[in-house]
Amino acid sequence: MFSPTIQKLIDLFAKFPTVGPRTAARFVFYLLKLPGEEAEKIISAISNLKEKVKTCHSCFNSFEGEGKLCVICKDSNRDKSLLCVVEKESDLASIEKIKKYNGLYFILGETVSTLKKSDLLKLRTKELEERIKEQKNIQEIIIAINPTAEGETIALYLEKLLKKALPEGKRVTRLGRGLPLGGEIEYADEETISSAFEGRR
Amino acid sequence: MFSPTIQKLIDLFAKFPTVGPRTAARFVFYLLKLPGEEAEKIISAISNLKEKVKTCHSCFNSFEGEGKLCVICKDSNRDKSLLCVVEKESDLASIEKIKKYNGLYFILGETVSTLKKSDLLKLRTKELEERIKEQKNIQEIIIAINPTAEGETIALYLEKLLKKALPEGKRVTRLGRGLPLGGEIEYADEETISSAFEGRR
Repeated sequence: MFSPTIQKLIDLFAKFPTVGPRTAARFVFYLLKLPGEEAEKIISAISNLKEKVKTCHSCFNSFEGEGKLCVICKDSNRDKSLLCVVEKESDLASIEKIKKYNGLYFILGETVSTLKKSDLLKLRTKELEERIKEQKNIQEIIIAINPTAEGETIALYLEKLLKKALPEGKRVTRLGRGLPLGGEIEYADEETISSAFEGRR
Repeated sequence: MFSPTIQKLIDLFAKFPTVGPRTAARFVFYLLKLPGEEAEKIISAISNLKEKVKTCHSCFNSFEGEGKLCVICKDSNRDKSLLCVVEKESDLASIEKIKKYNGLYFILGETVSTLKKSDLLKLRTKELEERIKEQKNIQEIIIAINPTAEGETIALYLEKLLKKALPEGKRVTRLGRGLPLGGEIEYADEETISSAFEGRR
């Protein structure tokens, strides 16, 4: 019932993650009301994204600028003996925000709820093995995969794979588990409570 | 922690309705993974939207094409004795979808949860009064404002205003109220149950 131009943009927005046709329609009407120059900003931000943003050849993080490496991989002040394996860029961004980790990263790709073989093949495990060969002085690999049901499976799988690939004496670790800040024991699941006991300090 | 181009687009998406910074980031990474030609489609759909889509001078619906009136207002087969007042275009679209209403429309503007005077002034009540003067043969005005708390207040306000503005013998009606299809009496609120009783048939 919408005019063709409106319907076309609704269909495109409806493919965005978490967006259905109703929300897509709201987006379009939001854009319709927006002043022309604001819409221009969105248009040029999208084209810039596609033109300027590249994928780092070492960690698969997005970056812009010269060369093949992102700011983190290029930074000589980062600790090259540490490698942190994350699922996706926003996980990397969250870890960077806490400013406690000064090592390097590797973006494995997102784990999905259906752990089919085809989904596993999409993860960059081959690239990770190669990366380990290249970055020779790695002392520790931190597996920072999200502790969801699928994530746990992937993490276990990675742990085996990495322990085999790394030379003797190097560590493969996982992020600590326990109650989140503000979490309540009453509402925590059994897994979390038992992790909190095991990891008590 | 994201690169400037990515952060800029995240900020722009975060202004979209229902979207927060996390969802905005997901949108950006979705676009990053999208093939170039798909991103092009989105860009050109947004520019088309801003270039081609106009607002109807009579009902304030969006439309594209020649002239100042939308397809509905231009259509000589529509019943010009009926006028349906809706809040927004997607309500109009939902009513058009049922193919039961053949009259004209008027888009009043969205009611907002805080019924401040400034919000009321944003509604097109003045334009509605003028429209009624122009469309002389109106027999019935159907107030199809959403039955939310704010909507009800606006609807009552409109009802008064329109009854004053319309000549004697013309009707101002509201959409029927009652249980929605698939609704359960057990879970319906008192207002809905009592509307269902009053509107029994």
